[in-house]
Formats: sequence, structure tokens, C-alpha cells
Amino acid sequence: WYGRSKMPATKHKYRVPLDFFAYNHSIETNTAMDNVATERRAEESHRQDSADLLIFIMLLTLTILTIWLFKHRRFRFLHETGLAMIYGLLVGVILRFGVHVPRNTNNVTMSCSVNASPATLLVNVSGRFYEYTLKGEVSTVKGPEVQDDEMLRKVTFDPEVFFNILLPPIIFYAGYSLKRRHFFRNLGSILAYAFMGTVISCFVIGLVMYGCVSLMKTVGQLGGDFFFTDCLLFGAIVSATDPITVLAIFNELKVDVDLYALMFGESVLNDAVAIVLSSSIGAYQPAGDNSHTFDATALIKSFGVFLGVFSGSFALGVATGVMTFTKLRDFPLLETALFFLMSWSTFLLAEACEMTGVVAVLFCGMTQAHYTYNNLSPDSQNRTKQLFELLNFLAENFIFSYMGLTLFTFQSHVFNPMFIIGSFISIFLGRAANIYPLSFLLNLGRKNKIGSNFQHVMMFAGLRGAMTFALSIRDTATYARRMMFSTTLLIVFLTVWVCGGGTTPVLSFMSIRVGVDSDQDNSVNGIQRRDTEHERAWPFRMWYNFDHTYLKPLLTHSGPPLTATLPACCGHLAHCLTSPQAYENEGRLHNDDSDDLVLNDGNATMYEDVTVSTDALGTRTANPKHSRMPAFGEHELVVRGTCLVMQLDDPTMSTPPPATSPPPFSDPFVDPFSEPRRNRL
Amino acid sequence: WYGRSKMPATKHKYRVPLDFFAYNHSIETNTAMDNVATERRAEESHRQDSADLLIFIMLLTLTILTIWLFKHRRFRFLHETGLAMIYGLLVGVILRFGVHVPRNTNNVTMSCSVNASPATLLVNVSGRFYEYTLKGEVSTVKGPEVQDDEMLRKVTFDPEVFFNILLPPIIFYAGYSLKRRHFFRNLGSILAYAFMGTVISCFVIGLVMYGCVSLMKTVGQLGGDFFFTDCLLFGAIVSATDPITVLAIFNELKVDVDLYALMFGESVLNDAVAIVLSSSIGAYQPAGDNSHTFDATALIKSFGVFLGVFSGSFALGVATGVMTFTKLRDFPLLETALFFLMSWSTFLLAEACEMTGVVAVLFCGMTQAHYTYNNLSPDSQNRTKQLFELLNFLAENFIFSYMGLTLFTFQSHVFNPMFIIGSFISIFLGRAANIYPLSFLLNLGRKNKIGSNFQHVMMFAGLRGAMTFALSIRDTATYARRMMFSTTLLIVFLTVWVCGGGTTPVLSFMSIRVGVDSDQDNSVNGIQRRDTEHERAWPFRMWYNFDHTYLKPLLTHSGPPLTATLPACCGHLAHCLTSPQAYENEGRLHNDDSDDLVLNDGNATMYEDVTVSTDALGTRTANPKHSRMPAFGEHELVVRGTCLVMQLDDPTMSTPPPATSPPPFSDPFVDPFSEPRRNRL
Repeated sequence: WYGRSKMPATKHKYRVPLDFFAYNHSIETNTAMDNVATERRAEESHRQDSADLLIFIMLLTLTILTIWLFKHRRFRFLHETGLAMIYGLLVGVILRFGVHVPRNTNNVTMSCSVNASPATLLVNVSGRFYEYTLKGEVSTVKGPEVQDDEMLRKVTFDPEVFFNILLPPIIFYAGYSLKRRHFFRNLGSILAYAFMGTVISCFVIGLVMYGCVSLMKTVGQLGGDFFFTDCLLFGAIVSATDPITVLAIFNELKVDVDLYALMFGESVLNDAVAIVLSSSIGAYQPAGDNSHTFDATALIKSFGVFLGVFSGSFALGVATGVMTFTKLRDFPLLETALFFLMSWSTFLLAEACEMTGVVAVLFCGMTQAHYTYNNLSPDSQNRTKQLFELLNFLAENFIFSYMGLTLFTFQSHVFNPMFIIGSFISIFLGRAANIYPLSFLLNLGRKNKIGSNFQHVMMFAGLRGAMTFALSIRDTATYARRMMFSTTLLIVFLTVWVCGGGTTPVLSFMSIRVGVDSDQDNSVNGIQRRDTEHERAWPFRMWYNFDHTYLKPLLTHSGPPLTATLPACCGHLAHCLTSPQAYENEGRLHNDDSDDLVLNDGNATMYEDVTVSTDALGTRTANPKHSRMPAFGEHELVVRGTCLVMQLDDPTMSTPPPATSPPPFSDPFVDPFSEPRRNRL
Repeated sequence: WYGRSKMPATKHKYRVPLDFFAYNHSIETNTAMDNVATERRAEESHRQDSADLLIFIMLLTLTILTIWLFKHRRFRFLHETGLAMIYGLLVGVILRFGVHVPRNTNNVTMSCSVNASPATLLVNVSGRFYEYTLKGEVSTVKGPEVQDDEMLRKVTFDPEVFFNILLPPIIFYAGYSLKRRHFFRNLGSILAYAFMGTVISCFVIGLVMYGCVSLMKTVGQLGGDFFFTDCLLFGAIVSATDPITVLAIFNELKVDVDLYALMFGESVLNDAVAIVLSSSIGAYQPAGDNSHTFDATALIKSFGVFLGVFSGSFALGVATGVMTFTKLRDFPLLETALFFLMSWSTFLLAEACEMTGVVAVLFCGMTQAHYTYNNLSPDSQNRTKQLFELLNFLAENFIFSYMGLTLFTFQSHVFNPMFIIGSFISIFLGRAANIYPLSFLLNLGRKNKIGSNFQHVMMFAGLRGAMTFALSIRDTATYARRMMFSTTLLIVFLTVWVCGGGTTPVLSFMSIRVGVDSDQDNSVNGIQRRDTEHERAWPFRMWYNFDHTYLKPLLTHSGPPLTATLPACCGHLAHCLTSPQAYENEGRLHNDDSDDLVLNDGNATMYEDVTVSTDALGTRTANPKHSRMPAFGEHELVVRGTCLVMQLDDPTMSTPPPATSPPPFSDPFVDPFSEPRRNRL
């Protein structure tokens, strides 16, 4: 191969001979030949890769078309994620049993050369765009049994893709679209469920699974190592409940806002807790030299890791969220690009600092929705919403269809019936140990009790989704991990189909109010809840007052200028820190002095935040809330609402647009003309 | 390392011993240890990767902020792409000379193991999201001199990233935002410049460079092989002119629409021709076994490849563009997602069929802008525009800042002064041989001559940009390719800075009209040009009539229904193929019968296409054109414009929106209220 350098002497017409460089030339020619061959193989492989990726695109297209059909016909028994999984399964079956024979030739891809390399598989990490690292021998390349199907191996992605590309937009969007008003009202309960609940669930599942594994070992059903830490890791992985599927149904049915807030808050924060929990269990693992035994200091270290990583990521996310305080209002494209890049850099920064990017991105999204969003130009508000909505939609459906696919294309599944049964029992117990005792404890402190029907729904609707999948596919090197992965897949499938599909019946069986407008709800039992808020939410109210008086004026253009809120001694500082636009607000704020009264009312605390939420189909749900609070201070609210509109549309507010092309676009949220049009549609 | 499996016997409390599986256990434990070590390294590498990517994000952020400053202050001497390059250069210098010493430890990344692998570098291509293939030994891993700097190698991306991720959105956006009206009016000239011009330029540059290389060889300046095909390849690579920089300036200055159309059309199609040309020269190369000699059959084969690949990609792009005939108007998110996926799948499909994805995507974009865009809901029209605009913006600035970076971080530069000087002379000659003779020939047939000042501007403004860079970085395996790459970098830098920065002075020196509104232009010399159109554009007019009468009604909701345009014998067929919405148009079309007259006028042919264009900063430039054609049929046009508005806003047209949440959004292009508001801003 390397030897042949014969060249037909008759065809030298256009060749540049290099006589003085003969030896090198010969080598170069051989290398060139080699290059050409490599290039050919690379091209072929590239072609194959494109075809494989095309499968996924087609899957997504199919899913979208079917979703459209479902929405059009108003089917509700199967959510789009369940649908995506089914399509994924079908394609997986086809790939596994249909097309795998003709693809089995070795000369198709470069990967064949990988098989010829020494014991460990080495990966060149230099030139890659999203720059995640393949964990060489982790996923499928280990056993000799997996090398037989090139095709299947190729459609199996690097698991880091999920963490670095697909999860961040989903989590960010969850944070960005949080209905903050109801979230903050139930903050205490949400935090309790998310933190204590997840830890309880993790340990309950871990212990049950440890029992199960011990039993399996006794019976002789276990084919490899399974340590206690593995059990705990499994507990952490399957404790992450999914914020997508159930909430889409909740959103569509307009269930009780408190239930919605509890479920949403819990499942979003849940994911953050679970990912940090699993990484701190990972930090526990290699405590001694390879001993998977109990070690108190390691436990404390793990706990420290948990706290450190979580709070670090939280701080980072909040910091970057606050930092994206853009003043590029005249150039929506620049603004949107900057917003996008800042969110992404939060993720990368956290990862580079050895923290959890997903957690940072979640809190970054929440912070940006709270502060930065108010600074954006109306056009950019719309653009960012739509952009992240699209990214979320694509990522979500991709993950779920990939899940379906991977059930058949993943080559190292370990399905163990006992383990699977045990895990289903354990997640049931874990969820129960999370919801019921915590609800009992929380109800001791809550005036607005979490009813038993709420508890049953929360119990039932704890599906596992994208995060669980991503965590379990991240590492499938050992027997234990593979068994976990296979079991997790089944758990996700069953919970999404059964719990997702059963949500509507369960809601009606539990007589949960549906069709509730989030603001009508306030007026119905406004008086009772008003009292509740006044008593319960004092730490929150304190924070809110601080936020409204100092943080919002400092970080956004909305709210009163700092000069009005800070004590007189800080006048100079306040002047420097207040944006010119805030002064414009000042006059208006003085016009309706009753504003302050409203602000101190617990119920109306968040009214001036325009909710960013859109449902899974892009039809916006943020109705003009301000106009539907008849119980107290309606007039003030409406006045304020108009102020907001005026503020954003007021030509004196924004710096004069460039002469070339004024942005003709205006956000319908604050569009004075949009109201009649919306009613007309 | 592998031997130690001692476990402290005192700590077995939580360990699950596996007595019956002892041997396997021991292996598993070692493997687990190994895994942990690998995982650690992978984590470390991942952390490093995140940090590296963060550099680019920060670069982009910096660029955006500076662009904002420039726009704000109205600096025009440096375009944003030039700016991005300068920042890239600065960071490249810092990376090269600033931080490279402390990063030189070998234990940081997994790549160190790559160095220990056998002669050829093998790459596992299995798990990657965008699934492009690293061309093993291509870029930097070959010589022993490059292994010394891990850091620099890591910020050097896989060149396929440019082709598979960064170029497609740029090219697609170019096609999607094409100002079709002026483009089609100059179609013949544009095609001549793009096809014949590029081929001429390629061969002129190739021949000049062959002379230069022969000279270098005689003088002893050549350090490796450089064949004639390499010269031709170089010619193809540097013949691709850039549609970004100059056109942004043109857009801002509002230069003469014909000049704009010529430049834009040429540089967009140019890229497509150059990429296919380079791949067909590549197909020529390995004709005999490794002989880089002249071969007539191989030449014919190359020509066949060129034609086949180009026409295949063209057909594919158009076919997919036509196929995305969406009926999901009620669900903008689904619609946008589908649109995005279809565009992407065009690219992938072309790549999978061994055609050129970039070319397919270009024509897909053009087709979609012409047909599919009219079917989208107003919300989706906005969303797709903004999405692709953002992607284009990010990709563009990324490529240019990467270019700056790579001048210092690429490790195998071959700067040869003679070659560089020769190449500058050759591109000058090549450009001249493209523009002047072709303009002369075209002017023989054109009534509306291409003036000599236009020709000089076209000559001057032929900068090289993203496509040239991507083509040259794609393969840097051989000495010749490396020299080409280094030279190309310099060419891009100089042309972007000198030609980009000098565009404004040159325009004024050549007394090109600026500040021309594309429609006022029509009315100024409307009569003269009207005649021109009538004489010249008959093949185009024929096509237009066919398009308007059959294709548009078939593929979009706009235009008359097929039942009205097809002969009576095809009545049944026409009924099946016409969308229900088209019937609604029918009544309106009959109301203004004079429409047909307007349609037959060459000048107003494209008036019903809403131009998708937005300039580089997202401030839309598509003014309501319809209202500014005073010369002929103004009333009809306005009526038609109102019809369009009514059609899109008419509640009877769209199926009833879902009860949950009607889309409150409406496109300002077709918003009856937007006119006064726009004036107000």
C-alpha cells in the first residue's frame, strides 16, 4: 500500500517534478495517496452520518405533523412526548431488525480503524464544535458483541450531547417561562418538595433497591457488581421528575394554579437537585482507593460537594442573569444575540468552573425573566421568547424520540426482571415518601392547605423524563450502570404513557378544578387567601419589598428610580445607578400614589411582571391579567397596566432609532391595538 | 496500577460481595478503576473544552458590544466582520504567546493518548451530535512540531464544522432574504458572472499560480509538492466572493438597486459554483493511481461531476423548498419548527446523496422565500425571519472571529512570500478577467448597460470571506494545502479590511448613486427601464407567467385559484389541487380586473412578494413598497396590498383557533395598524 509510487511517465505534462526533493517527495506522494484514501473513507462516513441524522430529522418532522393532527382533532390521551417516543420505538425496531444486514460491511466508516487500535479506545478531542468529550470506552464499544453493528452504533449519540446541547435549552426555558407569581407564592412548599423531597426519595429508592439487589444476589440473578452507591445513584437519577409532559396537560386544562405552581416548581427544581445529587454521589464513590464502602468523611465531603456545587451554580446563574442588563434596545438582533450568548456562556462558565451548567442555566433563566426581560425592547422580548420556545420544543421532542430509538439501538441493554419490578416498587415508595409526609408537615404551617386530592395528583403525576434519561445514559460503562439505564428507559416509557395519558382522568376523579383562569382564581377566594398571604409570606414579602425597592430599580428600567427609594444620604450613588428611563417612570408613579398600597398587598405583589409563558404550541397564554382583579385596587392595577403600555410605546423613552430603518415591530403584549384584535380572533 | 485491588476489610459494611463471580469481579473492579480514571480525564477535558468554547462566546459578545457602539456612533469605516476578525486576532495572539506555557502539561486532556497511537490517527465517529467526521491526520496532528501545544490545538475546530454547522445558515439566509425582484430582473447577468465568471476566474488564477509555482520551484522556494490541480483548486477556492460585508454596506448606503442585485446575486451564486467547482477538481485529482497529471477523460468526468452535483443539488433544494407547503397555520411553533427542520433536512439529504448541501440549502431558501413563505402564518413568517437572521448573524461573526484567531493558533502555517504576492496578483487578474470581459459581452445584449463605474465597483468589492475560508481550511493535510490555507487567510484579511473599509470612498469616487430607495428608483427612470424589460426579459416573463398562473396557485395560498387559470378540461384536477383559501382570493381578484394589466408589466412583476430582507442589524428594511409606485397602477397595488392584509387577518380564512389561547401576535408587515405606529416611532 505504502510502496506503490509508480506513475505513468507519459502523463507528466502538467506535473511539477521536484527533483531536488526526491526522497521527501516520495513520502509525500504516499502520504497524499493515503490522504486521498482517508478522505474517501471520511467522506463516506460523513455521508452515512448525514443519513443517520436525517433519520432523526424525519422522526421530528413526523412527530410535528402528528402533533398537529392531534391538536387539530383535540386528542388528549397522548402527549407529544409520548408520541415522539412511539415513533422513536418504531424507527428503532426498523433499524434494529430491518436494515441492519446490508450495513454490516466494514469499509463503510472510519470506525473500523478504531477497532484495530490498542486496548483502550483513544479519542481525539481537538476539533469539535460543541467540544464535549467522548468518554472513550464508556458506552458501547467495550464488549466484542457490540462491534457487529456499525449502523446501530452510529445512531447512538454521545451522551454528553444531552447535557451540553439538549438539556440546557429545556431547563433554561423552564426557568424563563416560570409563572413567577404563583411560584413565589408557594415558594416554601416548592423548596421543601424539591430539596427535602428529592433527597428523601433518593434515599428511599436507594435503600429499597439495595434490598432488591441483595435479594437478587442471593437468588443468583445478579450478573455483576452493584454497590450501595450505585443504588443511591439510581435513586438520585430516577428522583428527577419531568416538568414537560404533565404540565403541558395542566396548562391545557387550566388546572388549579396552586397545584400547577407546586408541580411545576417541584419538577423544575427537582431536576437541578437530582443532577447535583448524582454528581455528589459520584464524588463519594472513589473515596478510598476503589472501595465502595461506607465512609463518613466521604459522606461529609459529598454533602459539601452538593452544597458547594448547588450554591455555586445558583450564584453563577443569578450573577450572569443579572449581568445581562442590556442597553441595546435599538438593535433587537444584537440584543437577542447577546441574550442568547450570555445564557449559553452561563452554562459554559459553570461547566468550566466544575459546577453544574444545567443548574446555573435554570437560575439564569429565572433571573433573566425577572430582571433582564424588562429591559429588553419589545421586539427582543418576543424574539427571545420565540427562540427559546423553539429550541425547547426541538430539544424536548428530540430527546423523547431518541429515547424510543435507543431502546432498540443501544447495544448493551441489561434487562433484569427482578430489578425492574423492584425499581417500580421503589419509585412508587420514594414518591410517596416524598409527597405525603412533606405535605403533612407543610400543611401544619400553611393556611391554604394542600388538599389530599392535590397530594394524590402530585403522587400520580411524578413522571420521569428527559433529565432522568440524560443522567442514566451519561455513563453506561459498568454492568450496574447498564442495568440502571435499561430500567430507567422502561420507567420513563411507562410513566410517560401511563401517568401522562392518565392525568386527565385522574384530575377529574380527584375532582380537581380545571378551566381555572389564574386570575379569576384570585377573585373567587380572594379574601381568604389574602389573609393567608399576610400571615405566611412574611419572609417572602420582605424579600419582595427589597427586590422592588432596590434590585428592580437597580437592574431594570421598570420600577421607581433609586433616587426615590434609597435614603437621602445615598443620593449621589442613587443618581449614578439609576437608568435615565427610570426617571420617566417617576412622574407616572407619583400620579397614582395608591400604588404603594397595592404593592404591600401580598396577593398583588407580582402583578407588574409580564409573564413570559407560552404553552407548548406557541399560542400564548399570558392574558392581560391586570384587568381581571376586581376584588381590590382594580383601578390602580389598570392604571399601572396602561402605564406599562405607555412606557414601552412612548417615543420619548427609547433613544431615537437609526434613520435607516426604525423597527416597525411591536410586542402584542404591550400593544394598545392588540386588545380588540385578540378578541376578534 | 492495574494490580492493586486491596480493599480495607474493616469497611465492608455496605459492600455487596460477589463471591461466585470472583474472577470477573476482579476484572470489573480494575475496569471500574480504569473507568474512574478515564472519567476524571474526560471531565477535565470537558471542563477545558467548555473554557475554550467560552473564549469564543466572549469574543462574540465583545464583537456584539462593539458593533452596537459602532452603530450607535455611526462609524462605518469598519464592518462588523472586520471587527470580529480583529478581536479574533487579538485573542489568537494572547492564546499563542500569553497563556501557552502553563497549559503545556500532558495530563490535562485525553489527547495525550492520541499521540501515543500508531502512525495514522484514528477517530471514533460514532457518538456525535452533528455527526461530521474528523479527517484524521488532516489538520494539525501530523508533524512532530505541533504536538507541543495542547491548548492551541483545542481551539482549532474540526473544519467540517464550518461546512455542516456554520455555512448552511449563512447561505440559507442569503437565499431566504434575496430581494427577488431585482435579482430576477438581472438574472441573466448574474448567472453569467456567477457561472462563467467564476470558472474564468478559477482558471486564470490557476494558470497564474501555476506560473508562480513553477518560478518558485526554479528559484528553490518551494518546500513541497504543488501540482497543477492544486493551482486550480486554489483558483476555485479564492474565486468565491463574499456576500456579507460589502452588501451590508451597500444595504446601509442604499446604493443603486441594480448594482446591489448584481453584486448580491453574483456573490451568493458564486459561493455555490466555487464549492461545486472545488469538489469537481477534487474528483479530478485521483484520476490515475496517484498521478497528478493531465487526463482528458478525467477532465470530462470532472465536468460531469460539476454539472451533476450542481444540478442535483439545485433540484433537491428546489424540491424540498416546494415540499414545505405547510398547513399548520394555527400553530406557529409547529410551523416554524417544521420549516426549520425541512431546511436542515435539505442540507442533510444533499450531503447524504453525495451532493453539495450548501448549494441545496441556497436554492431551498430561495424557493421557500418565493413559495412557502406565502403559506406561513404571519407569526411564523416573523419567527422564521428572526430565527434565520439570528443564526446567520451568529454564524457569520463566529466564522470571522475564528478566522482572526486561527492566524495565530493554527500550527502548520506555511507563509511563502512569493506565493502570497503571486496569489494577490492572480486574484486581481482573475477578478478583472471575470468582470470586464463579461460586462462587455453582457452590455452587448443589455439595454440597461452595466456602466464602467459599476464594473469598477464590482471589481473592487470582490472580497473573499467565509466560503473561501471554509473551503481552504477543509483540507490542510499536504504542504500545498497548508500554503493555500495560510495565503487564503491573508487574502481574506486584506480584502475584508481594505475592500470592505474602502467601499464607501470608492462608491463616492465612482459616483455611484447612494440613498436610492429601491422603489423610488423605479419611478425615476420608469419609462426607460420599462421598455428595457419588455424587450429583454421575455424568457423571464414567460417563466414568470407560468409561475404566477400555475406554480404559485398550486404551491401557495396566494395568487388566483387554479380553477381560474387552468383550462376548463382540467377542472377536476384543478379543484383537487387548489387550497380552500385560494378561492377566497378569487372574489377579490375579480374585483380589480386591472390586476392582470399590472401583472404583465415587467417592472411590477414581483410586487406581491413580501420581501423577507432585514439588514444585518435586524431593523427591517422592507418598507411598504406597494404604496410607493406612483407611476402605474398605484390604486390597484394598494387595493391588492389591502387584500393581502385582509386575507391574513380575515377571521373566516383561518380555521377557528383553539379555545385555550388564540395567537395574539400579528405580523407588522400585514398589520393594518402598524402603519401609523411605524410613522410614530
